[in-house]
Amino acid sequence: MAKGYGPLSGLVVIDLTQFLSGPLATMILADLGADVIKIERPDRPKASGPFLNGERIYDLSVQRSKRSVTLNLKMEEDKKILLELVKKADVLVENFKPGTMERMGLGYDVISKVNPRVIYMAISGFGYTGPYRERGALDMIIQGMSGLMSLTGDPDGPAMRCGTSASDVFTGLYAFGAMSAALYDREKTGKGQFVDVAMLDSTFSCLENAVINTCVFHKNPQRVGNSHPTSVPFGTFPTADDGEIIITCSRDAAFYNLCRALGREDMITDPRYSKAEDRRQHKAELTEEISKFTRAHTLDECAAILEAHDVPNGRINTMTMICDDPQIAARDMIVEVEHPVAGKYKMAGSPLKFGNYPATTYEPAPMLGQHTQEVLKEYLGMPQEEIDELLEEHKNMLKK
Amino acid sequence: MAKGYGPLSGLVVIDLTQFLSGPLATMILADLGADVIKIERPDRPKASGPFLNGERIYDLSVQRSKRSVTLNLKMEEDKKILLELVKKADVLVENFKPGTMERMGLGYDVISKVNPRVIYMAISGFGYTGPYRERGALDMIIQGMSGLMSLTGDPDGPAMRCGTSASDVFTGLYAFGAMSAALYDREKTGKGQFVDVAMLDSTFSCLENAVINTCVFHKNPQRVGNSHPTSVPFGTFPTADDGEIIITCSRDAAFYNLCRALGREDMITDPRYSKAEDRRQHKAELTEEISKFTRAHTLDECAAILEAHDVPNGRINTMTMICDDPQIAARDMIVEVEHPVAGKYKMAGSPLKFGNYPATTYEPAPMLGQHTQEVLKEYLGMPQEEIDELLEEHKNMLKK
Repeated sequence: MAKGYGPLSGLVVIDLTQFLSGPLATMILADLGADVIKIERPDRPKASGPFLNGERIYDLSVQRSKRSVTLNLKMEEDKKILLELVKKADVLVENFKPGTMERMGLGYDVISKVNPRVIYMAISGFGYTGPYRERGALDMIIQGMSGLMSLTGDPDGPAMRCGTSASDVFTGLYAFGAMSAALYDREKTGKGQFVDVAMLDSTFSCLENAVINTCVFHKNPQRVGNSHPTSVPFGTFPTADDGEIIITCSRDAAFYNLCRALGREDMITDPRYSKAEDRRQHKAELTEEISKFTRAHTLDECAAILEAHDVPNGRINTMTMICDDPQIAARDMIVEVEHPVAGKYKMAGSPLKFGNYPATTYEPAPMLGQHTQEVLKEYLGMPQEEIDELLEEHKNMLKK
Repeated sequence: MAKGYGPLSGLVVIDLTQFLSGPLATMILADLGADVIKIERPDRPKASGPFLNGERIYDLSVQRSKRSVTLNLKMEEDKKILLELVKKADVLVENFKPGTMERMGLGYDVISKVNPRVIYMAISGFGYTGPYRERGALDMIIQGMSGLMSLTGDPDGPAMRCGTSASDVFTGLYAFGAMSAALYDREKTGKGQFVDVAMLDSTFSCLENAVINTCVFHKNPQRVGNSHPTSVPFGTFPTADDGEIIITCSRDAAFYNLCRALGREDMITDPRYSKAEDRRQHKAELTEEISKFTRAHTLDECAAILEAHDVPNGRINTMTMICDDPQIAARDMIVEVEHPVAGKYKMAGSPLKFGNYPATTYEPAPMLGQHTQEVLKEYLGMPQEEIDELLEEHKNMLKK
């Protein structure tokens, strides 16, 4: 099968992941040209919808450009096939609970003996060490435990979930980077290695300011809603047409530009507003001054005036608005593929634009076992009879 | 200077970034052992606080383990020095607005001529192409524009900012991975390249389900607060001691475990709850059934019972709670360094645990220009007199 052409072309990845963190990481590898071979149970349980012509929409997006091979890892024969594939692989990724692969006889000791050059990427909720190592985790659990939810939402309201699966995404992105760094390392040392990345660690490390501030001041940062813990002005302001415009001035220079945009050069030297610390002290008054201006103009007018004065500003797009945005179109950030069952569908494209390679190409998500024959022939030279026997066994398994 | 020992040891990175997306990406490179040389203006403007003994807390965390070299890139002499450093570098990272480096005479054409093996990582708000390419952007602007805010918050409340700088973090993590992948590619091809990563693209691509659902159904996903667009049950439930426990069951098997935990095996076969689609239809009733149980137990009791039945559950930690968590301690996720001025301080550690390398070591954030002499001697063999002249010029610049 013709795989994509990119910085990871030629890379062979064995993908044993589920949910989002792992599949996202391997999706990025596939976008960059890797041959990602998704190993699936022949009796894959029916997942929850929504569906498009019976195909799960979630998978249509995150499993794109991968190949699907069915193996029943409870059977010795299938386990042997997996290990044969590992011999040809550069990377193995799994996100089972720690201990699961060991119990299947597929722990890192076994994998690395079969292929010492393989990068074994273990993604888990809490990592391979520490008191919680055997606990499972899902995105929202980690959003709550990590402190992220405690930072999200209005000061007077409840702690809120970030509206995307931020913990899964942080973890998947870290894993993508870690695998790439380990591959670079392997080119120098010739050695594969075990890499242990946890969702709790990843999310905690992505809370930026909040961690060091808590360590330094020994108290909880206040939840600030659409404000910022330290920058003023920073937030949403009402416009004449009942819209909202985001204005953020983290640096004095941006604030001075804002003063000019408002025709209020006097505020630049006003001791209540001149410096960041002053503005923090007089946040309410300053917010009112800015709102007076924004309430007198439409959202479009506000945006044009602020943009002309180089003031960081933006609008709160809905999903349909951003999906129709000309910048998203110009950057190929929505792409279309055709799936044999689901038909044509669109999804988000890759944000990684490599100068030495043509634009990323995309294949649809595979159907269950779509590439079993193809992959076993291509990588293992397995005779047709053996493949037929294997598939027969899988069918028998389904009948039980 | 002794640099860290890790998969990126020996790597030389020229860091021209500011704010968060770029500095986060280079912080990860430094954590993995790279020598990150932060190029700073001798007249660096005083940034906003909070401060620890006069040092900016934000920088203490995100600039850790880097070296600081002051150069005035408006002066030809200093620009020449930068280009000499580029000759010794593997990676150059910048997050100016597109066009800024070109205007300084330091565009990719110049950089790649000086060192064709360099990876030029350009991070920007909107990328190097498209109608918005010349616009600046900051985290919240992109959270608003990308659609992320429209997905965050209560259905009846306003669109909310994710409580960490999610757009900066998504972008920084993508950039880290892209640089590592480009380095791996360089080992194969011998060629450096230009990599263009935008905050809007990165954030949009991290909205997972929301993008493909919008493309398929042509309507905005509903904001769901602490629920999930498709999984039921999923959310926070009240406990007897006025706490809240998170319970999420994305798969039927997890829901059946929950039924057992509640002593309500009858719900497993109840046609209102048995399948994911049924539960979506009867969300309110099911929420009440679960709440009846959680309201009768304390948070600790709920957690213990759910954990014993393998039901994904968690609590909403505050920052002080998670910073004191034994798992965070066991994973070395809070680390301490000693800064010559700020003194000892703690911050989040690296979530990347590489089996072939010892635990990450950390250096404090550098003071402005702390390593100018050291780096210019080490990499360029610059004589002391020339360094003295350069530093004298910088002092004159400050006097103006």
